[in-house]
Amino acid sequence: MKGLVYDGEKAAIRDGLEVRDPEATEVKVRIVAAGLCHSDLSVIDGTIPWPVPAVLGHEGAGLVEQVGSAVRHVKPGDHVVLHTVASCGLCKWCNQGKPAWCRASLGNPSQPFTLDGEPAWNFASASFFSEYTVVRGYQCVPIAKDVPLESACLIGCGVLTGVGSVFNRTELGLGDTAAVFGVGGVGLNVIQACKVKGASRIIAVDTMPEKEKWARGFGATDFVKAGEGVDTVQAVRELLPFSAEQVTGIMGAGGVDYAFDCVGHPDVLNNALEMLDWGGTAVIIGVPPPTATVPARIGNLTHVERTLTGSRAGSHRPHTDIPLIVDLYRQGLLKLDELVTAKYGLDEWETAVHDLHEGKLARGVLEVARLTSG
Amino acid sequence: MKGLVYDGEKAAIRDGLEVRDPEATEVKVRIVAAGLCHSDLSVIDGTIPWPVPAVLGHEGAGLVEQVGSAVRHVKPGDHVVLHTVASCGLCKWCNQGKPAWCRASLGNPSQPFTLDGEPAWNFASASFFSEYTVVRGYQCVPIAKDVPLESACLIGCGVLTGVGSVFNRTELGLGDTAAVFGVGGVGLNVIQACKVKGASRIIAVDTMPEKEKWARGFGATDFVKAGEGVDTVQAVRELLPFSAEQVTGIMGAGGVDYAFDCVGHPDVLNNALEMLDWGGTAVIIGVPPPTATVPARIGNLTHVERTLTGSRAGSHRPHTDIPLIVDLYRQGLLKLDELVTAKYGLDEWETAVHDLHEGKLARGVLEVARLTSG
Repeated sequence: MKGLVYDGEKAAIRDGLEVRDPEATEVKVRIVAAGLCHSDLSVIDGTIPWPVPAVLGHEGAGLVEQVGSAVRHVKPGDHVVLHTVASCGLCKWCNQGKPAWCRASLGNPSQPFTLDGEPAWNFASASFFSEYTVVRGYQCVPIAKDVPLESACLIGCGVLTGVGSVFNRTELGLGDTAAVFGVGGVGLNVIQACKVKGASRIIAVDTMPEKEKWARGFGATDFVKAGEGVDTVQAVRELLPFSAEQVTGIMGAGGVDYAFDCVGHPDVLNNALEMLDWGGTAVIIGVPPPTATVPARIGNLTHVERTLTGSRAGSHRPHTDIPLIVDLYRQGLLKLDELVTAKYGLDEWETAVHDLHEGKLARGVLEVARLTSG
Repeated sequence: MKGLVYDGEKAAIRDGLEVRDPEATEVKVRIVAAGLCHSDLSVIDGTIPWPVPAVLGHEGAGLVEQVGSAVRHVKPGDHVVLHTVASCGLCKWCNQGKPAWCRASLGNPSQPFTLDGEPAWNFASASFFSEYTVVRGYQCVPIAKDVPLESACLIGCGVLTGVGSVFNRTELGLGDTAAVFGVGGVGLNVIQACKVKGASRIIAVDTMPEKEKWARGFGATDFVKAGEGVDTVQAVRELLPFSAEQVTGIMGAGGVDYAFDCVGHPDVLNNALEMLDWGGTAVIIGVPPPTATVPARIGNLTHVERTLTGSRAGSHRPHTDIPLIVDLYRQGLLKLDELVTAKYGLDEWETAVHDLHEGKLARGVLEVARLTSG
């Protein structure tokens, strides 16, 4: 079978790939579609060190091909959304409904593949840029067959990360205000989740003015073009000033109830903190380099109870959140189809990467089941 | 009447003090006892700039002397705990049960006093180092007459700040673990609140080894002596290591679920963040200088959903929290009497300040109704 393999020097579609049968609690899936996310490229450029050869891709959907002897919740032929986080289900945190905090849920590389007969690694417990893969049963969430897999494939990473960060990591509610930094595959999902929850103002912030249209299409009420010469904090505070009749003083009243950093840059995060209203919360979603710090002003946090918090893959509870997301999609309340800017055959993956780097894509989808161009 | 007045150069007991009658929503209180808190000293040493002359004191209890025409919840003779935060009751945040976020709740100096016939300022809407004061009705919480006012006077600032930071700013529950930095009037209340909520391990951290006895008396299960040559993060992680059989890796598993900084120093706060377990929360209670920052590692927060949050006066909801604290005290679950290390006549205030600086006091109480020594 074919798949996109990184061998330590370059990534390429390889033909001599095989995957073993599922063990008792595992599922073999035929991948139909998979989203292209920056994290795959981070393996190729060395930002994420990973053992090689490795089969890439970690946001996908497909058809169940074969199930292990202990798997009960899916059967061959079921349509499934796949996600990357293989929580154990047994630890303190899984037991408390916080599977994103499970210590077993990080990558945990294994070698279910062979490449030309030699063992090959999966990536992020996933490897969805392959005709078939084997994952834990927990990673498969069944969905109705009328949901296009080319749209549903985005749920397990980009959609869950953005939507979950709002639903699971904040108490954002009716009438609250939000700023969202970075109008990409994650930011658009933060924006539409804020809209679903009833935010009164959703201010999208991005350096690329052409993203305003996307942002507004997903529910942003305002757009601030960031970049050289722009004081983003000031711009947001002008949109949400505080009544001059009331006490403001040095504590910086006005601003947003929630600020979401989908960019992963310390300066952006600092702006997010500085534009919070009293009692506001800044949520870190984007991932900067491992050593990056934010010089948070302590008084800004303690005097009026601001909060800085992180969100890991939307604090996912996949078997709750993915069915909810699909339901909201079917009700017309969350957009999935519109997230897919372009589709590519598996062999067109380099074109997809190029388009992503050019800022042309909210999400690009590789139609893995369509292996060749055209 | 007598009171402790800061005139811009020095603080002294002054005799020629008067306070006006209460307006419609105000209450005149005869102060019985008042706790000595660092914030009063910060006015004297200039750290907190305040208009002068000002009548000091902001943690107290007393007897209702006279009520304004619109006050219904207390009557003359009632025993009241006083607090300093005069929330408006009308704004968005008061309306949502978050009175600590009320914009009207900061100092708002006014001049209900005269000193030798000239207008004099209150401090922190309070001025409890005075025989009488006038406060908003909202600031008076009635309590049963069998609760000693010399103990109850501590509730409105030190106790509410410590206990409220646990009850109102965290979800700490049965079996959770906590580290508490600074075993003083606030830290001891954090410790006992963690105990009431069922924490399984409460690790007190202080530079003064003689505070271990206090800490354990209020519920600490462990004590770490901080200071020169001590790696506090390492010491706490040795007390709460993570099981070697499970995945730990670079994400720093092990450590505490909650860390409370009652010291107000960036290095302490950074230690608090670094000793958190996955999904843990660091709560900032102590107040460092206004420009202080903490260089928070972003990845440490986002990858495993750690949180940094501030607590303002225990996120007080005084008419809920103060009755609850009194009830827990009467059940023997929260200590108040033991917080009072020593009592002083109002004219002994300088001795109290000296003892505070020497680290001799959890809280020192000025018996305002006893104006002279002995």
